Amino acid sequence: MTEDPFADPLQRPRYTGIPTLMRAPHTEDPAEADIALVGVPLDGGVTNRPGARHGPREIRNQSGLMRAFNPANRINPYELCRVRDVGDALIRRPFRLEDSLDDIEAFFREVHAAGAVPISAGGDHSLTLPIFRAIAADRPVGMVHFDAHCDTGGPRWGSAVHHGAPFKVAVEEGLLDPARTVQIGIRGATAEPDAWRFSYESGMRVITMDEFHGLGVEKTIAEARRVAGDGPTYISFDVDGLDPVFAPGTGTPEVGGYTTHEAQLMLRGLRGLDLVGGDVVEVAPPFDPSGNTALVGATMMYEILCVAADALAARRPDSPSDPR
Amino acid sequence: MTEDPFADPLQRPRYTGIPTLMRAPHTEDPAEADIALVGVPLDGGVTNRPGARHGPREIRNQSGLMRAFNPANRINPYELCRVRDVGDALIRRPFRLEDSLDDIEAFFREVHAAGAVPISAGGDHSLTLPIFRAIAADRPVGMVHFDAHCDTGGPRWGSAVHHGAPFKVAVEEGLLDPARTVQIGIRGATAEPDAWRFSYESGMRVITMDEFHGLGVEKTIAEARRVAGDGPTYISFDVDGLDPVFAPGTGTPEVGGYTTHEAQLMLRGLRGLDLVGGDVVEVAPPFDPSGNTALVGATMMYEILCVAADALAARRPDSPSDPR
Amino acid sequence: MTEDPFADPLQRPRYTGIPTLMRAPHTEDPAEADIALVGVPLDGGVTNRPGARHGPREIRNQSGLMRAFNPANRINPYELCRVRDVGDALIRRPFRLEDSLDDIEAFFREVHAAGAVPISAGGDHSLTLPIFRAIAADRPVGMVHFDAHCDTGGPRWGSAVHHGAPFKVAVEEGLLDPARTVQIGIRGATAEPDAWRFSYESGMRVITMDEFHGLGVEKTIAEARRVAGDGPTYISFDVDGLDPVFAPGTGTPEVGGYTTHEAQLMLRGLRGLDLVGGDVVEVAPPFDPSGNTALVGATMMYEILCVAADALAARRPDSPSDPR
Amino acid sequence: MTEDPFADPLQRPRYTGIPTLMRAPHTEDPAEADIALVGVPLDGGVTNRPGARHGPREIRNQSGLMRAFNPANRINPYELCRVRDVGDALIRRPFRLEDSLDDIEAFFREVHAAGAVPISAGGDHSLTLPIFRAIAADRPVGMVHFDAHCDTGGPRWGSAVHHGAPFKVAVEEGLLDPARTVQIGIRGATAEPDAWRFSYESGMRVITMDEFHGLGVEKTIAEARRVAGDGPTYISFDVDGLDPVFAPGTGTPEVGGYTTHEAQLMLRGLRGLDLVGGDVVEVAPPFDPSGNTALVGATMMYEILCVAADALAARRPDSPSDPR
Amino acid sequence: MTEDPFADPLQRPRYTGIPTLMRAPHTEDPAEADIALVGVPLDGGVTNRPGARHGPREIRNQSGLMRAFNPANRINPYELCRVRDVGDALIRRPFRLEDSLDDIEAFFREVHAAGAVPISAGGDHSLTLPIFRAIAADRPVGMVHFDAHCDTGGPRWGSAVHHGAPFKVAVEEGLLDPARTVQIGIRGATAEPDAWRFSYESGMRVITMDEFHGLGVEKTIAEARRVAGDGPTYISFDVDGLDPVFAPGTGTPEVGGYTTHEAQLMLRGLRGLDLVGGDVVEVAPPFDPSGNTALVGATMMYEILCVAADALAARRPDSPSDPR
Amino acid sequence: MTEDPFADPLQRPRYTGIPTLMRAPHTEDPAEADIALVGVPLDGGVTNRPGARHGPREIRNQSGLMRAFNPANRINPYELCRVRDVGDALIRRPFRLEDSLDDIEAFFREVHAAGAVPISAGGDHSLTLPIFRAIAADRPVGMVHFDAHCDTGGPRWGSAVHHGAPFKVAVEEGLLDPARTVQIGIRGATAEPDAWRFSYESGMRVITMDEFHGLGVEKTIAEARRVAGDGPTYISFDVDGLDPVFAPGTGTPEVGGYTTHEAQLMLRGLRGLDLVGGDVVEVAPPFDPSGNTALVGATMMYEILCVAADALAARRPDSPSDPR
Repeated sequence: MTEDPFADPLQRPRYTGIPTLMRAPHTEDPAEADIALVGVPLDGGVTNRPGARHGPREIRNQSGLMRAFNPANRINPYELCRVRDVGDALIRRPFRLEDSLDDIEAFFREVHAAGAVPISAGGDHSLTLPIFRAIAADRPVGMVHFDAHCDTGGPRWGSAVHHGAPFKVAVEEGLLDPARTVQIGIRGATAEPDAWRFSYESGMRVITMDEFHGLGVEKTIAEARRVAGDGPTYISFDVDGLDPVFAPGTGTPEVGGYTTHEAQLMLRGLRGLDLVGGDVVEVAPPFDPSGNTALVGATMMYEILCVAADALAARRPDSPSDPR
Repeated sequence: MTEDPFADPLQRPRYTGIPTLMRAPHTEDPAEADIALVGVPLDGGVTNRPGARHGPREIRNQSGLMRAFNPANRINPYELCRVRDVGDALIRRPFRLEDSLDDIEAFFREVHAAGAVPISAGGDHSLTLPIFRAIAADRPVGMVHFDAHCDTGGPRWGSAVHHGAPFKVAVEEGLLDPARTVQIGIRGATAEPDAWRFSYESGMRVITMDEFHGLGVEKTIAEARRVAGDGPTYISFDVDGLDPVFAPGTGTPEVGGYTTHEAQLMLRGLRGLDLVGGDVVEVAPPFDPSGNTALVGATMMYEILCVAADALAARRPDSPSDPR
Repeated sequence: MTEDPFADPLQRPRYTGIPTLMRAPHTEDPAEADIALVGVPLDGGVTNRPGARHGPREIRNQSGLMRAFNPANRINPYELCRVRDVGDALIRRPFRLEDSLDDIEAFFREVHAAGAVPISAGGDHSLTLPIFRAIAADRPVGMVHFDAHCDTGGPRWGSAVHHGAPFKVAVEEGLLDPARTVQIGIRGATAEPDAWRFSYESGMRVITMDEFHGLGVEKTIAEARRVAGDGPTYISFDVDGLDPVFAPGTGTPEVGGYTTHEAQLMLRGLRGLDLVGGDVVEVAPPFDPSGNTALVGATMMYEILCVAADALAARRPDSPSDPR
Repeated sequence: MTEDPFADPLQRPRYTGIPTLMRAPHTEDPAEADIALVGVPLDGGVTNRPGARHGPREIRNQSGLMRAFNPANRINPYELCRVRDVGDALIRRPFRLEDSLDDIEAFFREVHAAGAVPISAGGDHSLTLPIFRAIAADRPVGMVHFDAHCDTGGPRWGSAVHHGAPFKVAVEEGLLDPARTVQIGIRGATAEPDAWRFSYESGMRVITMDEFHGLGVEKTIAEARRVAGDGPTYISFDVDGLDPVFAPGTGTPEVGGYTTHEAQLMLRGLRGLDLVGGDVVEVAPPFDPSGNTALVGATMMYEILCVAADALAARRPDSPSDPR
Repeated sequence: MTEDPFADPLQRPRYTGIPTLMRAPHTEDPAEADIALVGVPLDGGVTNRPGARHGPREIRNQSGLMRAFNPANRINPYELCRVRDVGDALIRRPFRLEDSLDDIEAFFREVHAAGAVPISAGGDHSLTLPIFRAIAADRPVGMVHFDAHCDTGGPRWGSAVHHGAPFKVAVEEGLLDPARTVQIGIRGATAEPDAWRFSYESGMRVITMDEFHGLGVEKTIAEARRVAGDGPTYISFDVDGLDPVFAPGTGTPEVGGYTTHEAQLMLRGLRGLDLVGGDVVEVAPPFDPSGNTALVGATMMYEILCVAADALAARRPDSPSDPR
Repeated sequence: MTEDPFADPLQRPRYTGIPTLMRAPHTEDPAEADIALVGVPLDGGVTNRPGARHGPREIRNQSGLMRAFNPANRINPYELCRVRDVGDALIRRPFRLEDSLDDIEAFFREVHAAGAVPISAGGDHSLTLPIFRAIAADRPVGMVHFDAHCDTGGPRWGSAVHHGAPFKVAVEEGLLDPARTVQIGIRGATAEPDAWRFSYESGMRVITMDEFHGLGVEKTIAEARRVAGDGPTYISFDVDGLDPVFAPGTGTPEVGGYTTHEAQLMLRGLRGLDLVGGDVVEVAPPFDPSGNTALVGATMMYEILCVAADALAARRPDSPSDPR
C-alpha cells in the first residue's frame, strides 16, 4: 500500500477520473505492458443490431467497479504482471469490413511484437479473426469459446467474414486448431439444419445449452480443460452466451443461456491453461440503457485477466512451483 | 433453399421489412394457414398495469430474431405445415370488456372454421376465454398453463371475466377440463387464503414454484404430460410465470419465477401432446423499454409453434411413423 | 366513409395490425403506387453512432399514429393519389458501404421506372446519393435540405461516400444542382474551418441556425422557395436538423436546432414546388428509448407526403386550377 | 415559519415521506378542504396508448418538487385556503367505461357537496365529463381547454363517451357552455375533414397551433379571457397540448405543440377568472421513463392551484380589494 | 372481510391511492404499531453510486403489488399484528454522514421505545448502524445478513462509518454479536486481500457465493439457523446480495449473486427465529428505470414482514403452541 | 493538419479511445495548460436528487462529439492556447460536505498557482464556492450566472453551504462582487417569498424567465455585459437554467426554462469579457438515460471554452488588435 492511498487509482472513488480499462494505467507503448488491455470499437461485421463499436468505451466506464484482488482464486493480477490499457485498435477504414479487419490486425501485430498478451474489449465477434492473424500466425491456438452461436458459418451477403464466421475462416487459415476448440452455450434456432456443421465436421467440441444443463458447471470445466489441453489457448467470451437478461445489450440475443455466476465459475476453472490472449465481445451498449451488459463484460474481462496473469506468471523461468 | 436467398424473408437481414409474426407470410384468409399466428391487442381485462394491447406489435417486431430450424428438437415448423400471420383479432368495442371478448371470439371462430390451429400473441389473459369459446365449443380441452397465478378467481369489481378469472369461467362453461389441466409456476401472495381454491376444488394440478423448485424440470414435464394425457390440449403461456427479470414488461409481475431456459425445456417436453392451440400472453411492452419481454414472448411462441407443427403433422392421415 | 369503418386500416385502433408506413397498403410492385413509401435500413455510412438501420421499422411502428386529413393545409394525400408501402430497399451486401449504395440504387431504379415518386424512411444520409442516382440520372434536381450539417464534406477514412458527403458527390456526378439547393439549420463545430466549403463554393444557399434565428420561419420559407424555383425538387429531411430534444435518436446530434413545429411550418411552406421525391433520414431508434424520434420522423414524412401528393396531383393533365 | 422547520412537510427534503399531491395534508373528508386535490386513475377511455391510470400516483411523486410561493404572481395558495389531497376517485367497476365514469361522478358529487373546489390529476380525458356532471349540474360552466385535440368527436367503436368526445357530450347534456369555451393548441391530422366540426358548429373558440404561432402568448391569453368572461369557468389541461418533448408520457402525442413556459404564462394569465375547478389529464407515465411528464403535470397543476386559490379568496364575502 | 371490499386498501386496485409501505395504514405514532414499517432516505454513506435516498419512496410505490396472505408459509401478517407505515426517519442534517446517522438513531429510539418492531426500507447500508444503536443498546443482537459484501471494512476517506463498515462498528460498540452473525452471498474482488478480515477474525460465519453454490438453499438455511440460534436476531437484506439482473438499481452491484427465488426461500427458512427487526437496503431507483429493484425490495420486505409477524405472535404470553 | 490524420484525437472516430474532456490531452500537471479542464465529482451539497458526481465522467464521454472550430464565432480554442484535461479534483473526504469543499479548493489552488484558467464540469453547484476561494482570494470576481435558482439562500439543514447557497457565502467572503453579478433564468416556486432576497439586497441583477421572455436574447446579452463590465468575470452555467427537456438529468429541475440555442447565443454574446474561469454544473446522468444532458453540458462547456480562449489570447502582451 502506498502512503497516499489516493495515489493508486484503484483506491480512488470508482466514479472519478478518466476511465481506462480496469483503471489500469494508460500507455500507447505496448512494450510497457505484460498484459495489454485493448478496446476494439468495431461493429461492421454484425448481421443484426449494431452498437458494439460503443462497447469498449462503456466497458471502460463500468470497469471502474472492478478491484484488484480476487478472493475466489486469490489472484491479484496487478501483482503478477504489468497490466496496461493501450487504448483502442485504430480502425482507419471503417466503411469496409475487410479493410477494418486489416487495420485491427496491424494494431495487434504491434502488441504481439512487443511481447504483450492482449485481452480485448469489443466490438463484434469478427474482431477475433484479425487478432488470431496477429498472434497465431506461427502456430494455431486452441480456444475456449463462450457463445450462443458457433460462429463457424459460411459466407453471407457477399462476404466470407462477418461476426457469424470468424472461426471457420480461422481454421481454414490455420490459425485455430479445431481439435483444441470447445464451444459452450450453443443454442437458438438456425436458418438451416446444418448451420454449424463446420464446427462438428472440423472436430470442435460443441456443448449446447441443453447439454450444459445436464452436465453442470464442474463437468463442463473438465471437458473444456480436456479439449484445450496443454497448448497455447485463447479465451473468447461472447456475452450472448449468457442469457439475455444478464447481457441485453448485444447484437444477437438468444433466450435461454447460462448465468453470470456460472460463467465466472467456468472462467475461473480455466486456471492453469496456457493462455495467450482473450476477449469479451458483442457488448452493444445502445441496447442496454441500464449499463449492466458492460458491467458484466468488465467482470468477465477481469476474470480472464486473473487467469491470464496467473498463466503468464507461471510461464516465467523463475516461476516457483505453485503450491495451489 | 431458393436460388435467390433474399426471396425468403427468413433469409433477409432480421431488422428489415414489414414485421409479421415470425416473419411468416401475411394473409387475411385463415384458410391459407395450417397454423394461424394471431395478435390479440387486448388489455381491457387487467387488474393492475395495462399495456398488453401493444404486445402483438412488439412481439412481431422482436420475432424477426426467430429462425426456422430448432436444433434442440430438430423441428422446422415451416416444412411441416403452412404457417401464416393472419393479423390481429379485431376488437370493435374496446370500451367494454365483455364486448371485446365477443369480438375476439368472432375472429377465432373464423380461424377455427377455416381449419387453422391458432397460436396467439397477447394481450391480457382474459383473451384465452373467447379463444376457448371458439375452438372448444364442441368438447372441452385440456391445458398446460404456465403462470404465476391460477387465473381461476371469482368475479371482481363487478365482472365475472377479467384476466384473473378466465379458467374458472372456462370450466363452468364446459370448455376446459380441469382434470386435464396443469398449472405451473404458481406463487405470490394473495388477497385471501382461498384465492385459487377453484383450481384445487375443480381438480386442476397446481405446481407452485416451491414444488417446481423441488421437482426440477424433467419431473415437471412428466407430470404435465401425465395430466394432459392424450386428449386435445392447449398451451397457455403467461409470461409472468417467468421471473420478472426475464419478463419485466407484464401487468402483474411476481418475483421468484422460473428461467427462460427452464420454460423452453418444459415447452419442448410437451412434444407429442395433441395440441389444438396455444398463446403467449401478458406481454406489456411499455413496462420494458429493453424489449426483452417481447423477445422472450416471441421465443416461447416459436417453441410452441414447433411442437404444434409437429402435432399437426402427426395428425395427418399420411403421417409416417416418426423415425426420431 | 366506408360501411364497415374497420375495413379501412386508418380507422382501426392505431396500435393494432401489421405496421406499414402510414398504415398504407403494402405491395411489392411499385407500379401500384403513385407515391412509394420506402424503408432504407442502412447505417453503414455513419461516422459516429450506428442504429439508423432500425429507423424504417420504428418509423413504421410510430407512423400508426398518423391520420389521413391534414387540417393545416386541408390535404388528404390518400384522396389525391395511390400511396403504398413498397417495403424496404433490399441491401444484399451490407458489409461494404459502396456495394450497399449500389443495391439501394437498384431498388430505386425499379421504383422510378414504375413511375412512382419515392418518399423514404432511413437510414443514414448516404442513402440519398443512390436515390439521386436512380431518379436524377437524366437531369439534376434541386433540393430543400433540412440538416445540422451540410453533408458536402470530402473523402473520409478512405471513402468518398459517407453520411457527411452525399451532396458533394451528387453535385460532382451532375445529379444535384447546387444553385437550386438550400440547406437549413446548419450549425455545430467542425474539424476544420472550411469543412462545408463545398456548399458555399458550389453555390448552395446555406442558412445557419443563427441566420434562421434572425430570419424566422416565414422568410426562411420564402428563401427556400426562391432558391428551389420551378424545377424538379427533392426534400431531404435529416432529423438532426431538429434540436436533439426532439430527435435524440440520431447518429450525430448537434445541440441548438429548430423545433418540430418550425419544421412542420417550413415543410408545409414548400407546397407548390415540383417535388420528385423526399426522405426522412438518420432516425436511430436505439438512442431513443422513448420512441419520440421515430414519431417525429413519421410526422415529417407525413408532411412531405402531403405536399408531394399535392404536387403530383398538380402535375396531372386534368388537374383543375387550384383555388387555394 | 414554524419553530421546527421540519414540522411543515413543505420544508422537508423533497424526496422524503409519503407522497401526496403537492405534499398537501391527506384527508378522506373533503369538507376539510377548500381546494380538493384528487387523483383519477382512469384510462378506460383511451383510443390508443393506455397508462394514464398511473398518472395520479406519479404526479404525486413528482409534485414533491413543488413549493409554496409562486414568485411569478406572488400567490401562496396555502395561505389563501385549505388545500388537501383527498385521495383517488375510487373506480369500482373498471371493466366498463360507462360504469367507471359513474363511479367518478359519485366521488366528485361528494367533493362538490362538501363545498370544495376540485383540481384533479388524471387519468384520461374522459374523466372531465363525470366531473362536469358532478359540479355543473345546476348551470353550465365555461372552459379554458389546453389540448392538441378538440375532444368533441362523435361516438367511436360503439361508445358515445371516450377520451376524444367528452366535451361534445358535456355540451349536449347542458353542462358546458360552448360559447364560453376556448380550445388552445389544436393540431394534428384527423381521420375526416370534419373531425372537430362540433367545436366550430357549437360556437367554441378554436385556436390551432398555427394560429397560436401567429398570435403569441399575450393575445392568446386575452382571447381566452374574452371567451371565458365572468361566468364560472373550468380549466382542463391535457398535457398533449404541449409538444411531446415536454410530455412524451401521454396517450396520443401530437408533434408540434407549445412549450411548458408558454403554458405557464397562459395559465397565470387566467388569474381573475371565476374558477370552479380544473384538471391535468393524460399523464401516462409508462411512456416516459424520465418522469418529466409527471413533473410537468405537477407544475401545471400547481399553476392552476395558484389561480384557483386566488379566485376562491376573491369570492369570499370578506375579500379585501386586491391591491395587485 | 368487510362489507365494502373497497374499504380495505389491500382490496383496491393496486395502482390507486396514496402509496404507503405495503398499503399499510399510515400513522406518525409508532405506539399504534406492533410492526413499524419505516423509510430511511439516506445515501450519504455510499462509496460509489448514490440514489438510495429515493429507495423508500419507490419501494412504497412498488409495494402496492404486495398482498396479504402468503401461500408459501400460510402467514397473513396483518392478522397477527398491527402493521403500520410510520413514515420516514427524518434526517435533519444530511450534509454530514455522522449527523445523519444520529438523526436516524433518534427516530428509531422512538420506535423502539414505543414497543414496535422496525422493518425498514433504505437507504444505504450505513443506516443499520443507528438502528442497532437504537434497538440493541441493552444487549447485542445476532444477524442474518444477505449481501455481496461483508460490510465490515475499516475507516475510509476519513470516516469510520460508511456503507462498507457498519457491522465492524456495530461489533466494536457491542451491538452485534459476531458469533451469532451469518453473511450470505459474499463475492467480488476487493481492494486488499484482507478487506473482510474483520468478519473472519471476529467470528462471523461468511458464506461466499461459491460456497452457496455448493451448499444449496436448504443447507444454507440450516447453517444460518444454527449460527443465529435462539437469541434476538435481526435480518439485514442488502439487495446487492442478489445478482444485479434482479436488482440493477443499487450502489455497488456485484455480478454473480443468487436469484430472488433463492432469497425468498432463505427468508422463509428463517421462520421461528426470534426476530427483533429487519431491513431491505441499497435500493437506488435512479439506476433502474424498470422499477424491478424496488419491486424486489418490496417483495423481500414482505417476506421479512411475514416471519417477523410470526415471531412477534409467538412471543406473546398467550401464544398457543403452533401446530405447524 | 498533420500528415497522419489519426494522430490528432480530434480527427479520430468520436466513439473511440479513452474519453477526456473535449478529447483534449490529459495531464496531471496544470502548468502544461493555459486552460485547465477539470472534473468535480461532487454531489454532497444537493438538497434533492443526487447523481452529479457522475457528471464529469459522462460529460467526458459525450464531449467526444465536440469538434475544434466554432463556425458561429470562428474561434478554434486549440489554436489560441493549450487546452488540457487535468483530471478530477480529488475529494478525499466525501462524507462531510465542508471537508469535500476544502479538498476541491486545494485542487484549484494548484491549478490557479500554475497559471491555468479553470473550466470545470460538475458536480453540484456548491463546487463553485471552493473554486472562488482558490481563484478569487485576492480580489472579487464578477459573474454571469445561468440558473433557475439564485443560489443565494441561507443556511439549510444545519449547513451554511449547500448547492442553494454558494453565492451568498461567496459574497460574504468577499470573493464575488454582487454589483457585477447577473443571474439569468430564475424561476420556480420557493419555500418563502423572500427566498432569493439576498440576491436583490446585495445588488445582483436578477433576470427571471418572465423578464427574459420579454427581453429576448439580444437585450439579455447586453444587460449581462453591462453588469459584468470590464473586471475579471466568471461564467457559471447550471444546466437547470435550461428547460428540463434539454437537461432532464439534473438535481432540481424547474419547468419553463430557456432553450439550448438561446443559451448558446448568450454564451457567445459574452465574448470580450475578461473571463477568469467557468463551469457547467448539476449534470446528474442517472436521471437522464438518453445522455442528452451531458451532451448539452459538453456543448455549453465548449462554448465557454471558446470565449475563454479568446479572452486569454486577448490578454497576452503580444495580442494583436482584434479585427472582429
